[in-house]
Amino acid sequence: MTEATIITIGDELLIGQVIDTNSAWMAQQLNKAGIRVARRVAVGDVWEEIWNTLDEESKHADIILITGGLGPTADDITKPLLCKYFNGTMIVDEGALENVVNIFTNILKRPMIARNLKQAEVPDTCQVILNKRGTAPGMWFQKEGKVFVSMPGVPHEMKGMMTDDVIPGLGKHFKFPHIAHRTLLTAGVGESFLADLVANFETALPAHIKLAYLPNYGMVRLRLSSSGVEKDAIEMEVQQFFDTLQISVKDYLVTNEDEPMQMVVAKLLLAKNNTVSTAESCTGGYIAHLLTEKAGASAYYSGSVVSYSYKAKEDLLQVDKYTLETKGAVSEEVVVQMATGALKNIKTNYTIAVSGIMGPGGGIPGKPVGTVWVAVGDNKNIVSEKFNFRFDRQRNIELTATYALNMLRKFILAGEK
Amino acid sequence: MTEATIITIGDELLIGQVIDTNSAWMAQQLNKAGIRVARRVAVGDVWEEIWNTLDEESKHADIILITGGLGPTADDITKPLLCKYFNGTMIVDEGALENVVNIFTNILKRPMIARNLKQAEVPDTCQVILNKRGTAPGMWFQKEGKVFVSMPGVPHEMKGMMTDDVIPGLGKHFKFPHIAHRTLLTAGVGESFLADLVANFETALPAHIKLAYLPNYGMVRLRLSSSGVEKDAIEMEVQQFFDTLQISVKDYLVTNEDEPMQMVVAKLLLAKNNTVSTAESCTGGYIAHLLTEKAGASAYYSGSVVSYSYKAKEDLLQVDKYTLETKGAVSEEVVVQMATGALKNIKTNYTIAVSGIMGPGGGIPGKPVGTVWVAVGDNKNIVSEKFNFRFDRQRNIELTATYALNMLRKFILAGEK
Repeated sequence: MTEATIITIGDELLIGQVIDTNSAWMAQQLNKAGIRVARRVAVGDVWEEIWNTLDEESKHADIILITGGLGPTADDITKPLLCKYFNGTMIVDEGALENVVNIFTNILKRPMIARNLKQAEVPDTCQVILNKRGTAPGMWFQKEGKVFVSMPGVPHEMKGMMTDDVIPGLGKHFKFPHIAHRTLLTAGVGESFLADLVANFETALPAHIKLAYLPNYGMVRLRLSSSGVEKDAIEMEVQQFFDTLQISVKDYLVTNEDEPMQMVVAKLLLAKNNTVSTAESCTGGYIAHLLTEKAGASAYYSGSVVSYSYKAKEDLLQVDKYTLETKGAVSEEVVVQMATGALKNIKTNYTIAVSGIMGPGGGIPGKPVGTVWVAVGDNKNIVSEKFNFRFDRQRNIELTATYALNMLRKFILAGEK
Repeated sequence: MTEATIITIGDELLIGQVIDTNSAWMAQQLNKAGIRVARRVAVGDVWEEIWNTLDEESKHADIILITGGLGPTADDITKPLLCKYFNGTMIVDEGALENVVNIFTNILKRPMIARNLKQAEVPDTCQVILNKRGTAPGMWFQKEGKVFVSMPGVPHEMKGMMTDDVIPGLGKHFKFPHIAHRTLLTAGVGESFLADLVANFETALPAHIKLAYLPNYGMVRLRLSSSGVEKDAIEMEVQQFFDTLQISVKDYLVTNEDEPMQMVVAKLLLAKNNTVSTAESCTGGYIAHLLTEKAGASAYYSGSVVSYSYKAKEDLLQVDKYTLETKGAVSEEVVVQMATGALKNIKTNYTIAVSGIMGPGGGIPGKPVGTVWVAVGDNKNIVSEKFNFRFDRQRNIELTATYALNMLRKFILAGEK
């Protein structure tokens, strides 16, 4: 099987100043195309270390994809290094020059400086990949049967090149096997318990089909994978095992597609032309953000109220002042009133209301950090539940959103029965 | 200088199913402690590849930190591999066993199964690191002067071990130099233009002080770094150059600390006990989410209205129906009315209102995808501005949030003059 390495270049990755989201996206695309990513390596803007990494990775991999270090500033050394590594001379590429001039003249409408023109220089030993979204061109090199591609680290520029040029180009160079994946999502069950539940299934699984557990706080995804040349046969075999797997975990199954919880809820709403709103306290708009992440959200999502303060709960959701004072904002009574207020004011079919203590501070006797009340419902019925999470603020916010969306999912399904 | 490698293990990293946030956090902690991270490598759950990576990385690095692959399921092979790699025999660790039993009995309140007990097994050649937040123990190995530490991939478990045991333990083993960093944030200026602006400064910079450019859509961070044994002298020297750098970029300077835009706004609000609300259409609650990301947000943030539909704009923010119909939701008139409505209904000192077309679909003649109107203001004055972004949906949402927060920052500063 053709193997690839992804090399990301930049000091910022090694001091933890940025989170590398490029590699995950690139790995997904390569995988879909039938290329196995065997390793991902991040190195700093250090000549010798980049050089050695190129040497080392090209020993094992057939394809070496490089991102980063192509900016116009002094700390960006990838281009001169690649020029030397592939025994080239730096020349001005006419197409790249035209692209830089066009971007400055027509899009940025800013004067161009000498430094920008340098972006059009490339080693004469590469094939230039035009950057339709930025000034730094991509570069395609070949050496001893291996392909090396250098792309900018700016995500949407890299993504454009990968989709338009790199993946199609690799497809012409190599013969890839087909890779089949099936992923399902479970909620409300631990990894160990799940492993016991599917123990017989796992034992019966042929060696060439792999089962992976991908736990993620309150949810576990299970993934079956196989690869080979016979596309149809592989897909069919994996699908058959996947059907059995779904039956094994049916009590906890959220979806048999590789999609997040919010998409499952969105699809349920769309199927019956229903809408949802949210009334959020502790999650501060995060559930609304998840529901509107994908285009087309307006078909099932109308709006939300983020009522962080007591006053906002009273003014925007008509939560009763006396209830707030006697029961506290994190209480069943308040969260049910929030849901009622949201349904009345935003006029959706369903709503989700949450109120909790996300930490690190703010815990009180009887209501420690991680205490969360969630209510979901429609105009006929509102159900509520208390949760106790025990993580850091960010994870508590994520968990609250996941559990709240899952509660709504179950509520909708129960109503359809 | 002591160098470290971070190895993350798991097939999910190589097919892009999860984004690796652990490595960035670990790199930050190591860096603060004076340890340079030279490389980060991700490998799959494949025996030979993990083994070779350990061999390869320990040639260059003094410290090898490993995360992932310690779960209770069959695809997790890190522990048996490390047992063999360090010539050990698997034994039950009493402390780890007690921890597993305690978690199931007192926290999860679930029956324990045989698979969970296996979590308490460790190679007898390691020193056990107690996991206070989960069942899989950490393992500390030493070989030929190098330190290898294996931790679970679950972020909060890994973070607890790093803070409580690994960083202090490494501090006892090695002598680390001091690392000084200073980071500032600029907005509204491109990387090339900024590079020209600081060209003289960069030329005059001594070789041992490094300047890095960290661009991030509409913002560029500049970071100065140096390291050595004399802590005070290094800090003072870097600070002096940092003072000069701030003067060079003063027209675009947002903050001279390594903090995100929303924290700069939060601090401005806190300084005068002021509050902010948001009225969001296209960002779907994302600005509210950013403002409430950190604990203590209730001191400056009261609430928000996410008005995704026309109806929600009318009902929750009293936007005029006729204006919506004649000017459209993405217009100066509507966004100003949204701001006015938010100030009236949520009663904060300031507000931010946004309405735009985030894509990929939804563009109309005269209003292409990426058209965004932003209004910021207080009870006396509301200012508005139109932006034209040209990225994908996710980036357009992020950019809108950044520019809107920056507009409020400038509005507050202008009012204080």
